[in-house]
Amino acid sequence: MKTTYDCIPCFIRQALNAVRLATSDEKIHEQVLRGVLAAASKMNLDQSPPVMGQYIHKLIRELSGHDDPYKEIKKQFNNFVLKLYPDLKQRIQRSSNPMDTAVRMAIAGNIIDLGVNAEINRSIIFNTIEEALSAQLFGNIEVLFDSIDSAKDILYLGDNCGEIVFDRLLIEQLPADKVTFVVRGGPIINDVTMADARETGMTELVDVMDNGSNVPGTVLEKCSKEFRECFAHADLIIAKGQGNYETLSGSKKNIFFLLKAKCPVISGHMGCEPGSFIVKRSS
Amino acid sequence: MKTTYDCIPCFIRQALNAVRLATSDEKIHEQVLRGVLAAASKMNLDQSPPVMGQYIHKLIRELSGHDDPYKEIKKQFNNFVLKLYPDLKQRIQRSSNPMDTAVRMAIAGNIIDLGVNAEINRSIIFNTIEEALSAQLFGNIEVLFDSIDSAKDILYLGDNCGEIVFDRLLIEQLPADKVTFVVRGGPIINDVTMADARETGMTELVDVMDNGSNVPGTVLEKCSKEFRECFAHADLIIAKGQGNYETLSGSKKNIFFLLKAKCPVISGHMGCEPGSFIVKRSS
Repeated sequence: MKTTYDCIPCFIRQALNAVRLATSDEKIHEQVLRGVLAAASKMNLDQSPPVMGQYIHKLIRELSGHDDPYKEIKKQFNNFVLKLYPDLKQRIQRSSNPMDTAVRMAIAGNIIDLGVNAEINRSIIFNTIEEALSAQLFGNIEVLFDSIDSAKDILYLGDNCGEIVFDRLLIEQLPADKVTFVVRGGPIINDVTMADARETGMTELVDVMDNGSNVPGTVLEKCSKEFRECFAHADLIIAKGQGNYETLSGSKKNIFFLLKAKCPVISGHMGCEPGSFIVKRSS
Repeated sequence: MKTTYDCIPCFIRQALNAVRLATSDEKIHEQVLRGVLAAASKMNLDQSPPVMGQYIHKLIRELSGHDDPYKEIKKQFNNFVLKLYPDLKQRIQRSSNPMDTAVRMAIAGNIIDLGVNAEINRSIIFNTIEEALSAQLFGNIEVLFDSIDSAKDILYLGDNCGEIVFDRLLIEQLPADKVTFVVRGGPIINDVTMADARETGMTELVDVMDNGSNVPGTVLEKCSKEFRECFAHADLIIAKGQGNYETLSGSKKNIFFLLKAKCPVISGHMGCEPGSFIVKRSS
């Protein structure tokens, strides 16, 4: 999808949040702010929002000299959800439909998106889990179940730290030998990288690869050849989160987008209510 | 006060809201957006936020050809609060301390600030009135009462449409012959102009003048000579709203700022909780 005018104030806010994490030097805050404003004034709105996200965080890394401002926060979220993991696992196992419950958990985990909301805390996560378990999903989960049953090669595109533990809960319900989990090729916002896959046990569960790009989404032209081949070969792609939706919503592959619609631009594009829990197949 | 980095995303959002009101032509939305982004990338942050506000709305007027995008909305808010007026007046008259109640009403009215929040509706206004009547005020209302008792020349700087009817309720508690009510010199956001003072009965109650400027605040250098003389002569100035606070907070005059702190930049600058109801004397 293209970048909308409403994405722009959000970019500026996101840039401020991120540069403040990277450094306390206000001169650099100002440089980043002015740089992002100038870039946004000339940006190509036909690009998807994560392309601008990549530019913003590159600028912050260059000007602050900090290559991973979210490093500590990412660890905290991974550790926090790892502590919840045994309970969540039990809730899935004891539920009447473990696969359904696991999909809902995976969508709930998408609330941990610090690009959209820097103020995510434990109580928001707990509330989102409860909401997700009883919500009317937007989309058709039965079609996803059918697709999983017939799939031979499942590519699971991860999104954020913390959220990856929720993904693990869903992946544990899938045939492990058919699944490859994908992380970003480098640090960007609180998105998952290979280090997070290791930290959260994902690498012990299934094959994990990085996509060779640090766009906070999946822009195929910017990904590695190896990833593009896996993407082309997969017969089912599970794409988590807004960034993957924003960059892959026009794709002709068999993709299921699992996410929580956290901003009005996304809910408007999908045609659902803001805040919806979504299992949407690419059209 | 100066413009903070956190004001910038708010400017962009405000520009989008306003240009969408002015025209449905998306090309003009984009021109305004790019123009505001480019201007913000080079702006002088030592200026107060309303100076940028003035620039944004000038650009919108020029590009859209619409000289008052908020015209209809301003009428709607004036009419809506005029309908509430008899009830609110009765609540003031029946209260144990009518002056205190009237000050609280005037502060409650400051919620109708479409620069800060374009989504103001009736239920928000009703809730804010009830909150204001029982809230712990930030500042010292007794000092305001003393200042009113001893004042010979009161300048009351109005802020927004709809809110002006709440101001009328307070001004009805003041000595009418000592009060001059001030409106902006031209349309800007939903700020009051002479037409609104007429529409809401303010002109029949006290002297009303415009300040000769369409900054959504009071930047003295941009105001008329006549207004500056009145400002210099007044021994009590009641300044409503965020815009007047942002532009006059450094003044050495005897000013009481009456407002609701509707954004974190303002509450941070004042040292109060976000959402506070404020009666603050200039220091």
